[in-house]
Amino acid sequence: MSRVFSGIQPTGEPHIGNYFGAMRNYVTLGEQYGKDSIYCVVDLHALTNPAAFDPRLLARRTYEMALANFAVGLDPSRVVFFAQSHVPEHQELSWIFTNLTPVGELERMTQYKDKAGQLESVPAGLLMYPVLMAADILLYKADTVPVGEDQTQHIELTREIARRFNHTFGETFPEPKAVYNKDALRIPGVDGHGKMSKSKGENSTLGLLEDLGSIWQKLRVAPTDPARVRRTDPGNPDVCLIFDYHKLFSDLPTIEMVNVECRRAGIGCVDCKKRLMEGVTAALSPIQERAAELARNPDDIRDALAQGAKEARAIAAPVMEEVREKVGFLKL
Amino acid sequence: MSRVFSGIQPTGEPHIGNYFGAMRNYVTLGEQYGKDSIYCVVDLHALTNPAAFDPRLLARRTYEMALANFAVGLDPSRVVFFAQSHVPEHQELSWIFTNLTPVGELERMTQYKDKAGQLESVPAGLLMYPVLMAADILLYKADTVPVGEDQTQHIELTREIARRFNHTFGETFPEPKAVYNKDALRIPGVDGHGKMSKSKGENSTLGLLEDLGSIWQKLRVAPTDPARVRRTDPGNPDVCLIFDYHKLFSDLPTIEMVNVECRRAGIGCVDCKKRLMEGVTAALSPIQERAAELARNPDDIRDALAQGAKEARAIAAPVMEEVREKVGFLKL
Ligand code: SF4
Ligand code: SF4
Repeated sequence: MSRVFSGIQPTGEPHIGNYFGAMRNYVTLGEQYGKDSIYCVVDLHALTNPAAFDPRLLARRTYEMALANFAVGLDPSRVVFFAQSHVPEHQELSWIFTNLTPVGELERMTQYKDKAGQLESVPAGLLMYPVLMAADILLYKADTVPVGEDQTQHIELTREIARRFNHTFGETFPEPKAVYNKDALRIPGVDGHGKMSKSKGENSTLGLLEDLGSIWQKLRVAPTDPARVRRTDPGNPDVCLIFDYHKLFSDLPTIEMVNVECRRAGIGCVDCKKRLMEGVTAALSPIQERAAELARNPDDIRDALAQGAKEARAIAAPVMEEVREKVGFLKL
Repeated sequence: MSRVFSGIQPTGEPHIGNYFGAMRNYVTLGEQYGKDSIYCVVDLHALTNPAAFDPRLLARRTYEMALANFAVGLDPSRVVFFAQSHVPEHQELSWIFTNLTPVGELERMTQYKDKAGQLESVPAGLLMYPVLMAADILLYKADTVPVGEDQTQHIELTREIARRFNHTFGETFPEPKAVYNKDALRIPGVDGHGKMSKSKGENSTLGLLEDLGSIWQKLRVAPTDPARVRRTDPGNPDVCLIFDYHKLFSDLPTIEMVNVECRRAGIGCVDCKKRLMEGVTAALSPIQERAAELARNPDDIRDALAQGAKEARAIAAPVMEEVREKVGFLKL
């Protein structure tokens, strides 16, 4: 038996980078693994970044992240989908793991060093982040963790914590493996400044639930091949972010057409963008319709999260029972 | 309204140093504060010391510490008495506080520096210890914390965490005050090597539940004033641990008699120790009888701890509700 765990940051409205990088993959894995695919909106992790954390927005962002995932096709009745703060066993297991993890190993984590280096005062939550992450995964004895490559070191630490627990208290946890989504391309920001990223602001991202008119305004002014000054200049789609988007949203004949016609100035950039917008509209319209429908009944989202938390706790309960007994706490 | 919180280390059988230093005080406070005095056997903290931690003993030590406290007169039906691992809200609140506490402040704790300095690999639990301690206290909005003077810095950190939470999320927690037990004398070890301490081994301690014959064997060979070589040499009770014990166990006339007669060789050390043993017997016999009675029904101890955990969670629940709402987690 194999079980998938994935943590989803409650960053609020996701963008198409999140969609192609992770969310689409969750739907596929959900269909494969069913109730053995566990998706957790990690609102407890959100606290570790004091700069990005806003108590007035956390609940809404958690809600929106659930809604967006359901809108792209993740079916909460067929997977386990919940918010981390609704399952206190995460922190319970995390405390136990804290005692198995040397301070020095945590200080050596690349992500910690990067983030801590930018702060005057470093909250301990930032240091403990990977311990809570290990608890997230091992609480469900998950062995398969779809993540970005930047999480490789944290997954290695999770494996180390599993080994150390097993060694100290007896065989209990599997050593989970990271699986990297091959489709997680480096999707460029629509402003032409590097990777699409929420942290670079609205001008970088195309929101999954963003108004199509607003998306078109961003595409319309998006930079193309800078060498193509006049309509009659041939272009190079390989250096054009619009062509990258075509590869995500357009059908193969359209992609091939752009690849050929751009190079011989057979198509203008405005027309090329209009063709792209057709693909974007075809992809996002049904998602946005489902989202609008879901948003009409916010209680359904809440109910789904409550049900998800219940299912998660049902999986976690026997694991924590086993852990408590092995660590030696008095049983009542 | 005022509320007392005290954490009790599950070190197994307590000794008379623990009794005069803390346990006797708990009984007094319990009579004063009733259900607003909260006693917690901190089995989660026990994990932070990998050298002293033994999973095969933890449950028994937790149980024994409860039994000993009940035997000296703490009435579980009149106070709130429970084990930390049975109330997961401690870890839940601890994680939130972790994000409000700078790593640097934790690294500067004297106790951390002392303990970490002795270890090759320092578990993160040792660094996080005072954060969990802050959660222990503030989870019950306790404002009064009877502790040893070595905990002054940790209580100051707790106050700082309370202030920081209140500042960030709105007024929630009181700033608790440490109260030091004036009777918590430096009780000398019966082997004459410094303070009575479990960590120095059996020869240092007089167990509260130790067989009286065994206690007498230790007293019999205990060092007295080293200047008193012969029975006819006058002694100095001020440098004799037996006299320190008299001050704890004997009545005022006996203490006065020893103080006078020792100095003029009017009493021999063996007789002096026999008089002490009478006081020890009078003090410990009823405690040991109650302990034996309690031990006959281990399920009663378990039931008391289960009831205590229920009462603790009932106090903690509205506090955590308030905390979750203020931090901004999605409410279901
Ligand atoms: S035609 Fe399309 S692919 Fe070519 S430069 Fe213009 S927008 Fe880019
Ligand atoms: S007579 Fe008592 S107080 Fe004096 S030295 Fe002997 S044991 Fe100590």
